[in-house]
Amino acid sequence: MADESSKPTAEILDRLYRMVQSKRGADPSTSYTAKLLGRGTAKIAQKVGEEAVEAVIEAIRGDRDKLADESADLLYHLVVLWADAKLAPTEVYARLAAREGVSGLEEKKSRKSSN
Amino acid sequence: MADESSKPTAEILDRLYRMVQSKRGADPSTSYTAKLLGRGTAKIAQKVGEEAVEAVIEAIRGDRDKLADESADLLYHLVVLWADAKLAPTEVYARLAAREGVSGLEEKKSRKSSN
Amino acid sequence: MADESSKPTAEILDRLYRMVQSKRGADPSTSYTAKLLGRGTAKIAQKVGEEAVEAVIEAIRGDRDKLADESADLLYHLVVLWADAKLAPTEVYARLAAREGVSGLEEKKSRKSSN
Amino acid sequence: MADESSKPTAEILDRLYRMVQSKRGADPSTSYTAKLLGRGTAKIAQKVGEEAVEAVIEAIRGDRDKLADESADLLYHLVVLWADAKLAPTEVYARLAAREGVSGLEEKKSRKSSN
Repeated sequence: MADESSKPTAEILDRLYRMVQSKRGADPSTSYTAKLLGRGTAKIAQKVGEEAVEAVIEAIRGDRDKLADESADLLYHLVVLWADAKLAPTEVYARLAAREGVSGLEEKKSRKSSN
Repeated sequence: MADESSKPTAEILDRLYRMVQSKRGADPSTSYTAKLLGRGTAKIAQKVGEEAVEAVIEAIRGDRDKLADESADLLYHLVVLWADAKLAPTEVYARLAAREGVSGLEEKKSRKSSN
Repeated sequence: MADESSKPTAEILDRLYRMVQSKRGADPSTSYTAKLLGRGTAKIAQKVGEEAVEAVIEAIRGDRDKLADESADLLYHLVVLWADAKLAPTEVYARLAAREGVSGLEEKKSRKSSN
Repeated sequence: MADESSKPTAEILDRLYRMVQSKRGADPSTSYTAKLLGRGTAKIAQKVGEEAVEAVIEAIRGDRDKLADESADLLYHLVVLWADAKLAPTEVYARLAAREGVSGLEEKKSRKSSN
């Protein structure tokens, strides 16, 4: 584990977004992502809803391992939904940052104590 | 905009997670996050489900601006759910990375073409 | 319990539907139903999604009493969604009957044994 | 259409409930219902959540025909969830009746005008 880059970071969401974008208009038979994009907005949105329900269920059941799996599935499909809507992840992060700004002082304090 | 750090990145999810963690056991009257954590897993999971439904609806309606808002709300509540379950974001990113690994070659290709 | 009519039956869904229909165009300040109808399809659909998530959560938690409550809330909002879409309950029952028809023989057998 | 009984009514929910109850402990290979019951509460609840999301989507899309289909699917899976929890439909109707009671005067008025 000398290679720090091998540790997955939040940046994987951006890599995922670029990967999904690259599948636009690709032959649906070549990958799950291409197939899903080809099925259209309603189908992608449906998958987001389904994966959210599964994450909810695993959280209630207290199964942390499955919650991690379902959370990953949810994030993946959410990223596909963004790509389908031509919504850049940065726009979503900006909304989160704005929300963070509201409680910014508290947040900064927490970062200091956790560093 | 000379300051690159002012541009929100995916790393905001990690900052958010640390902020949420810092609210564990805090007085519920001090922030929305502290209050939500105090209400317990079922309530947090319920919010994740609700925000997912709202994101689904805005995607179908084709309202990109509201989709960004609801996606941010969904991510925020998902991060609270992770904190409540003591599930580190890194564990979720690892599942996404594993999934990415499956189609790794395609992904690398896409990154080259988008860079 | 001499009065058989005091026992609620499935027919309450039809009464509910007529009640909701009667609120179309009514002053939103006069009842929750009138207010909800006034907010439009997206809001009504959102409520259906939310109540479904709550029913899911109570089922997983094994709280039968709250499952009954959330199921009632779900049915109520579903009926409002039908009224909003001008979809008569009979049309939905017909789909259920068609589905039932598929396994009709088994179903008849079960009714005999349970009677 | 001389035969009134051929017109589906809300009572189909009760017939469905009895049918589902009769499948408890049945060989999962004999029917979809038996298989679903065998998979347990979490899987049944998941299906309720999924069908609700699909009903939401069709409502937003304004597809009344598909909304009828998805509503029937939702009701079917909800009835299976009740059977799994040993929750009699009558208990759910009672909650709806109580809710109806709150706005009983308005409701009675509406029934008169619609009769």
